[in-house]
Amino acid sequence: MRDAREDAEAIFAKALEGVIPGRLLERSVTREGRELRISHDRGQFSLDLDAYRHVLVLGFGKASGELAVSLEAILGDRIEDGFVVTKAVGRNRCKRLRLAEASHPVPDSRSMAAGREALALAAQARAWEAAGEPTLVLMLISGGGSALLCLPAEGLSLDDKAGTTKLLLASGARIGEMNAVRKHLSGIKGGRLAEAFYPATLVSLVLSDVMGDDLDTIASGPTVPDSSTWEDATEILRRRGLWESIPVRVRRHLEEGLQGTKPDTPKPGSRVFEKAWSFILGNNLLALKQARSEALERGYSCLVLSSRLEGEAREIARVFSAMAVDMERYGLPLARPACILAGGETTVTLRGKGRGGRNQEMALAFLCALEDCKALDLNLAFLSAGTDGADGPTDAAGAFALPSMVGQARAMSLDPANFLADNDSYTFFASLGGLLKTGPTGTNVCDVQILLMP
Amino acid sequence: MRDAREDAEAIFAKALEGVIPGRLLERSVTREGRELRISHDRGQFSLDLDAYRHVLVLGFGKASGELAVSLEAILGDRIEDGFVVTKAVGRNRCKRLRLAEASHPVPDSRSMAAGREALALAAQARAWEAAGEPTLVLMLISGGGSALLCLPAEGLSLDDKAGTTKLLLASGARIGEMNAVRKHLSGIKGGRLAEAFYPATLVSLVLSDVMGDDLDTIASGPTVPDSSTWEDATEILRRRGLWESIPVRVRRHLEEGLQGTKPDTPKPGSRVFEKAWSFILGNNLLALKQARSEALERGYSCLVLSSRLEGEAREIARVFSAMAVDMERYGLPLARPACILAGGETTVTLRGKGRGGRNQEMALAFLCALEDCKALDLNLAFLSAGTDGADGPTDAAGAFALPSMVGQARAMSLDPANFLADNDSYTFFASLGGLLKTGPTGTNVCDVQILLMP
Repeated sequence: MRDAREDAEAIFAKALEGVIPGRLLERSVTREGRELRISHDRGQFSLDLDAYRHVLVLGFGKASGELAVSLEAILGDRIEDGFVVTKAVGRNRCKRLRLAEASHPVPDSRSMAAGREALALAAQARAWEAAGEPTLVLMLISGGGSALLCLPAEGLSLDDKAGTTKLLLASGARIGEMNAVRKHLSGIKGGRLAEAFYPATLVSLVLSDVMGDDLDTIASGPTVPDSSTWEDATEILRRRGLWESIPVRVRRHLEEGLQGTKPDTPKPGSRVFEKAWSFILGNNLLALKQARSEALERGYSCLVLSSRLEGEAREIARVFSAMAVDMERYGLPLARPACILAGGETTVTLRGKGRGGRNQEMALAFLCALEDCKALDLNLAFLSAGTDGADGPTDAAGAFALPSMVGQARAMSLDPANFLADNDSYTFFASLGGLLKTGPTGTNVCDVQILLMP
Repeated sequence: MRDAREDAEAIFAKALEGVIPGRLLERSVTREGRELRISHDRGQFSLDLDAYRHVLVLGFGKASGELAVSLEAILGDRIEDGFVVTKAVGRNRCKRLRLAEASHPVPDSRSMAAGREALALAAQARAWEAAGEPTLVLMLISGGGSALLCLPAEGLSLDDKAGTTKLLLASGARIGEMNAVRKHLSGIKGGRLAEAFYPATLVSLVLSDVMGDDLDTIASGPTVPDSSTWEDATEILRRRGLWESIPVRVRRHLEEGLQGTKPDTPKPGSRVFEKAWSFILGNNLLALKQARSEALERGYSCLVLSSRLEGEAREIARVFSAMAVDMERYGLPLARPACILAGGETTVTLRGKGRGGRNQEMALAFLCALEDCKALDLNLAFLSAGTDGADGPTDAAGAFALPSMVGQARAMSLDPANFLADNDSYTFFASLGGLLKTGPTGTNVCDVQILLMP
């Protein structure tokens, strides 16, 4: 007899294994003598290392320490210089690359020091190129890179940027709007880092923590073109009624941009990207594919809904409960034993004062929805968890929802609906033994949902 | 070259054809001489008409006029008496059955007159049974029956019930809570109608407008057991802080129930259900199956997600956009040409002042989500529509969402996100030619969503 919870945990573990940064890099990047090969989903890209006099490495992001160790193992002493900024260096050790730590998600002075160091490295690369010495720069980019490597545009402070961001958030600005403004307040984001390294050869190896793998969003797209303009950034702030409330230095900075005193971020087609390439090492889909293999192995029929599920966690949960009930009743969308997989990044609109994260909230909402459907007798497990091991400000990666938990909760005089109303999913699942704790996984490719019906 | 919108419209039309009330009844109910057969999803049920001296028919609900016409065609003059109350008699004509109209969704005096007439019919049936004359009562039940056939418990007025319902709604009570209270204020709902007809034989033929086909929810379950008690009803009102605000007669009525002065609604296992059977003639799943056949016929691979999708329309929309993008990119969950089907009943939390319905809102939110994903270049059509032909307080059944509409809207200086924020999906789609208008369809099995990617 299959145990749904055990199987769900094993399937999640396999999904994680599939996206360990070091392994992903080793899978994609190989070296044979002077040839460096990068396999990607459309084929292979290769470089002649001997064509370069200098090889530099610059890494930023939560998984970039691990990526650096693997890259060093491949390139060894061909790496001349470089450094990597990450949230926690942990046990990662490099011989040639300097590993530094900075703050995430809120950048600090170490983030700015890292930003300045990146520009110093860029100045070195430009100087070499100017001296006719071809220079290759390998970038190791992963989620969180935007906070860890940070440098406001000249004349602006971290506070100026943070203040503007906060106003935008409170105004309900969409992520695209946030990015357009932020890229115009930065000395690094929105392709400016690529610009700084031009004309060196730039190869970005990216672990995607962003749905859809939009390169201009991951770590705020420092090495890819930015389509947004000074006009866009200004217009967004005006439309949101924030133009008068933003810090005066930010307003002046944008006005100078509009007047043409300051150059815009590099646009698609700009020459600074002539020798710049980006490759995705891993993403949510890869985790889902690993999960699918494991589910099939365990005898489940399997459906991958999407790798980019977004929306309010408690609402999206109802799609899973609706599928669960219809699988039981009609064998739709799949006949049992069945596994439905999805990935992405949902959101939680905070209404209560409890503890939790979007994954735990989704698991709790799933239970409430099952109860509304009078379907608590179903044999199933639902797991929603973050691949980074940290769901919201908690020590859990996510939570298992088992229908039996509702009865157990009521026997303890706990009402699931009350916990959901208070956004207190952590306390709920802690009481019921439903938390999944993996500790920091060293990777981050958004979240994974597993609905398992033996 | 397939036209996605055309195909979606044709698939929806087929879904509707599959749930036309008259046809559903003729498919399920057949007569051979003295034998009346009812086919259902677990087999067949048959009755010997000659065992009954009297055959009565009682119908209530929006589709019950059509059901009555079909039933009369089958039973002819074996029907001795009966009547049917519906929202619009339209072109339905019966020889033996009286067809009446009443108000929906808010009951009126005609609804109460119908309720009294039903109880008079019940008194006749009881009298015959008491005289040793076996009586068969065929009930034709469909959505809206709860408003169309209505009788407050003795001593209560329509206003008492309506006032209590309004308070519950405003307090955020869940549908199960609403029903528990309402059934205890009614002389018909929650099995009381079956009780009134006891010991006659009762066969309910039900067109389900409710997700999951819960018989105790459809038309408020007048012919099936009610598990909720006087205590439940009272406790719900107290917990919601409404006990002091409800009309004084309602409070007194419930107190009398608690004290045992008034009998509770008939519970599961009660003898009044000994000779009572219910059969579902049609439901959302049936519509989806018809849609699937048509989609397969047109060369699409097809996935039926669920027949009971619920949740906030604008959030659920994002699940469809997420699947659309991943189908284009990765062939997940299906390879193109693909059709994803779902059904159910979502909700809209009104924030703005515009016009629309849950289906049109979902279609609009789908477009906004596609735009957020920068996926407006996809070749697809998304249709969300109500099978009754009326989405919210509009003359449209729902709306088609085509990615090209976003560009067209912007060219007309219309911002889809603004229309969504104002719950003004009707105006948006009216401007873009995206409305689906079927007129009243005469059936009602919730909504259908069709995502089509040629």
